Amino acid sequence: MRVSRLMLATLRDIPADAEITSHQLLLRGGFIKRVASGIYAYMPLMWRVLQKITSIVQQEMNAAGCLQTLLPQLHPSELWKESGRWQGYTAGEGIMFNLKDRQGKELGLGPTHEEVITSIAREIISSYKQLPVSFYQIQTKFRDEIRPRFGLMRSREFIMKDAYSFHRTEKDLKEKYNKMDEAYKRIFEGCGLNTVAVEADSGAIGGGASQEFMILADSGEDSILTSQDGLYSANLEKAISIPKKPLELDGKDTYIIQTTNQKSIEEVCSNNKLDPSQILKVVAMLAITQEGKIQPLLLTIRGDQDINETKLTNAIETELKQNILSLKQITKDGLISQGLSSNWPFGSLAPDLSDDLLINAKTWERNFLRLVDNSAAELKSFVCGSNSIDKHRKFMDWEKLGGLPKKVDIRNSKAGDSCVHDPDQKLLERRGIEIGHIFQLGKKYSNALNATFTNEQGIEESFWMGCYGIGISRLAQAAVEQHHDESGIVWPIEIAPFEVIVVIANINDSNQQKLGEKIYQELIKEGVDTLLDDRPERAGVKFKDADLIGIPWRVVVGRDAASDKVELVNRANKQTSILSSQAAKDALYRDISNKS
Amino acid sequence: MRVSRLMLATLRDIPADAEITSHQLLLRGGFIKRVASGIYAYMPLMWRVLQKITSIVQQEMNAAGCLQTLLPQLHPSELWKESGRWQGYTAGEGIMFNLKDRQGKELGLGPTHEEVITSIAREIISSYKQLPVSFYQIQTKFRDEIRPRFGLMRSREFIMKDAYSFHRTEKDLKEKYNKMDEAYKRIFEGCGLNTVAVEADSGAIGGGASQEFMILADSGEDSILTSQDGLYSANLEKAISIPKKPLELDGKDTYIIQTTNQKSIEEVCSNNKLDPSQILKVVAMLAITQEGKIQPLLLTIRGDQDINETKLTNAIETELKQNILSLKQITKDGLISQGLSSNWPFGSLAPDLSDDLLINAKTWERNFLRLVDNSAAELKSFVCGSNSIDKHRKFMDWEKLGGLPKKVDIRNSKAGDSCVHDPDQKLLERRGIEIGHIFQLGKKYSNALNATFTNEQGIEESFWMGCYGIGISRLAQAAVEQHHDESGIVWPIEIAPFEVIVVIANINDSNQQKLGEKIYQELIKEGVDTLLDDRPERAGVKFKDADLIGIPWRVVVGRDAASDKVELVNRANKQTSILSSQAAKDALYRDISNKS
Repeated sequence: MRVSRLMLATLRDIPADAEITSHQLLLRGGFIKRVASGIYAYMPLMWRVLQKITSIVQQEMNAAGCLQTLLPQLHPSELWKESGRWQGYTAGEGIMFNLKDRQGKELGLGPTHEEVITSIAREIISSYKQLPVSFYQIQTKFRDEIRPRFGLMRSREFIMKDAYSFHRTEKDLKEKYNKMDEAYKRIFEGCGLNTVAVEADSGAIGGGASQEFMILADSGEDSILTSQDGLYSANLEKAISIPKKPLELDGKDTYIIQTTNQKSIEEVCSNNKLDPSQILKVVAMLAITQEGKIQPLLLTIRGDQDINETKLTNAIETELKQNILSLKQITKDGLISQGLSSNWPFGSLAPDLSDDLLINAKTWERNFLRLVDNSAAELKSFVCGSNSIDKHRKFMDWEKLGGLPKKVDIRNSKAGDSCVHDPDQKLLERRGIEIGHIFQLGKKYSNALNATFTNEQGIEESFWMGCYGIGISRLAQAAVEQHHDESGIVWPIEIAPFEVIVVIANINDSNQQKLGEKIYQELIKEGVDTLLDDRPERAGVKFKDADLIGIPWRVVVGRDAASDKVELVNRANKQTSILSSQAAKDALYRDISNKS
Repeated sequence: MRVSRLMLATLRDIPADAEITSHQLLLRGGFIKRVASGIYAYMPLMWRVLQKITSIVQQEMNAAGCLQTLLPQLHPSELWKESGRWQGYTAGEGIMFNLKDRQGKELGLGPTHEEVITSIAREIISSYKQLPVSFYQIQTKFRDEIRPRFGLMRSREFIMKDAYSFHRTEKDLKEKYNKMDEAYKRIFEGCGLNTVAVEADSGAIGGGASQEFMILADSGEDSILTSQDGLYSANLEKAISIPKKPLELDGKDTYIIQTTNQKSIEEVCSNNKLDPSQILKVVAMLAITQEGKIQPLLLTIRGDQDINETKLTNAIETELKQNILSLKQITKDGLISQGLSSNWPFGSLAPDLSDDLLINAKTWERNFLRLVDNSAAELKSFVCGSNSIDKHRKFMDWEKLGGLPKKVDIRNSKAGDSCVHDPDQKLLERRGIEIGHIFQLGKKYSNALNATFTNEQGIEESFWMGCYGIGISRLAQAAVEQHHDESGIVWPIEIAPFEVIVVIANINDSNQQKLGEKIYQELIKEGVDTLLDDRPERAGVKFKDADLIGIPWRVVVGRDAASDKVELVNRANKQTSILSSQAAKDALYRDISNKS
């Protein structure tokens, strides 16, 4: 390809609306064009990058025995109602774009395809003899993001590879899951990327074990906690750990301490010579379920710890056996609108707060779901509120509170915590960009959609299912976030739009022009993805563009062309050698055949 | 690929809701699965077919110097408002799915991408030096069809290749258009298809010359008119021709004939010994424009001819210089709702009907736009209505009617008409399936979106644009419509999901099993797309499936496997040869290397 015909349109200035480096570089290099908020066109250079990633993904998916398909992007609401996800994905904070067609039928724009593929599987798979089977597709998906940003990182249209597997047994599912885990590692390595696999929450997709693949980068939106020995990695939503030991509180006889104007745990501590780990933090919240139930919650955690909303949601869903649409704090305004006294002892709440406060609620449930985090449950003696304004109780224990509520893990793990696998190991916090996610779905969707097969005993049974995603367009940008320098992008050669750029320094010099063309033609003939910069621009402009768009190797044909000498420049380390044209080509063939 | 792992699920019965053969065969062969009305999943076999078509298209587009991109599917309404198409595409009969995002912004699901690509071109192309440039993409598009049907032929989600070219001059555009015409012919030939190129109307896309590529098939939705010598082909909307000569009407002195209860032209003819070609047919209609104007029309055509709505729409748009949203008949109810007398002389309307009838119209324009088709304009003496119920006038001419209204071509050409290029040639009517369409858009979109470049004289000028589409998924089904027999699909080898199927007749026979595997492995090694039917089914079932899914070559490994003999069967002509396994492989290599 000739640069003169590539429609290269690079920008010198940093675009104002691009916050992170990879987004800036993709815009400056002309790889993407913004069409609307969170909606981008992939221009020719970017399309080549996406194609290279796609090929690597296809090769590994095919090798893992997955069959490529292409599923619809418009999903009938009926299927999502069968799985119970329509409302959650379209109402309130739901991220599924949806519309009515000319017949008034509701359709969603697919953000994920569990419903569609499960409905097809229930139609075409009838016997255990047809199992296992896995389907995948590479396709544009849609999310009506609350806050689209960072270019392709959090866009409203994005390219995904998603795969779905169907099995007779949980054992088969786990085998496939492990196989996909390995395939994923080969894919990311094949793309020239450094990734970390972390334990993850299954979120709205649902199901059992799941794992995310992260590209480490300071601009990443995800918090990752890893052990010092690298044996444990999880994202913040999922991470488990042992919090630091609480300071002991010696004393048995409970008494009231006056805590007037001490609004926070910090204030209670500093005024009373206490440590936050000696105090119970009690929070009153509401959980709104998909079925419309509004459940008051009374949550207790150790004073130096924070509640993890994902873990909390999972715990409540387990208790209520209903999906949670949203969580919010109980406020005075909320109490008033329920016709309740707004005179709750906020700031002095305790786990034994009476259900009587809810007795006149209009639409809320009339008793609290009480949950206590392990960190608080383990305390022998503690300070807690008294359910009266400006008063706390010292030297309390769970017996005095009327017993321990339901014990759960709803705590945010954090850097400095001890690891479960080895308490001598501490957790470290890193930032990451999620580019892949694999899930053991179990029977969640097959049960909901009544997708069954006849097993060896002749009995109808729901499929065991797994699902496996890779964000293709996000991966492309994350690669830039991981591989760039002050001059621009430094593409890993495996996914670079071109492997080599031949720059003719002065296009009016016939020696340079001839030698440049010759090298270009020969590289093309040998199957090297080569770009020829044949523009009538100054050499400096061409070098800057070549650096910005990140082509791994640059062959400069300049003043020494007459004596068949060229300059070979490595984009990553900027090493430069003066070589004969043949030696330069040989060096390129060696490097490129090693890499691909 | 092994059939046992392919998830092949064929149907013996013809699916009830599939009207045409190709749709039935794709469903029966498990190529596609219906997910909702007009929405299909492409299953693994179909995905392979689509991939092969895609590769052929990419190769030719790249060779024609087009750059591959991927443009968004969600289009902001602002862009479509700039081009003036938002309302026409979303209101009334508009086929663009549309929705509001969480911010309340209107988005359309792209049925075509002129607006998006023109907005990008205006941003990145500033100088004539960057021209010409062409972009293309292969992508799922959307149409909210009024009546989705015939499987992939008229679906609501479909895969298109669309290309857009930008030029300095009309001459450059025409050169590109011709180059694309040639590329299209190579693509369809490369897919093993017989197509006809026909002149076409540009429709809502707008612009100048355009040409459609049709697969001839009796089930085709499009009427094509071709000359006997094949030199002229056009679709019904666009075709021009010379109608048969009218019967002369001798007589100069006009008189009234009573035509009581003679409601149709046929009745007037049979009661008065007239020929339809001697009578004026006059029709009163309304045109609703995008700007909201409601224009009454009085249209005249020869009694034996019919009005072509596409030509009519184009003629009115030319006259009014506004886009037409819809056309409808003027009815008595319509007159009443305008507060007009409903006492119009329907059945005896004449071209000199008075504008006074419109004088009290509430929202309609108050005079007729009068158009007369060439066929009626040419008549020297004719019969026409008298604008009084049950009365016609005989021996009228245009002078007596107060002169000729605006003369236009709004006539449907039909089989039997004489051709313009050679009046000795008659038009024949054929049915076709449109699979490609190329357009000279001219400056329609670049003017509307203010997309300009600086020309050699330093003056800002709008781009000359062309656009070029291929219906990839429709082409795949049209190929089946053109290539099938009573046993199933007969894929052209160029786009077949697999080139060869090796059928092991009895999987329990170890000789057969061993030889089948050996042939399969060797064919794969030589790069032949091979399927191995290794299922524990009866041979007859496997042969039926192989025929149904249409694999061009079948190698049957049966009883003679012990003596290294196999049966080689050509799917298209059913010719069978008994050969040694080596001779069979050699025959396959010969055929396949000839074809690809």
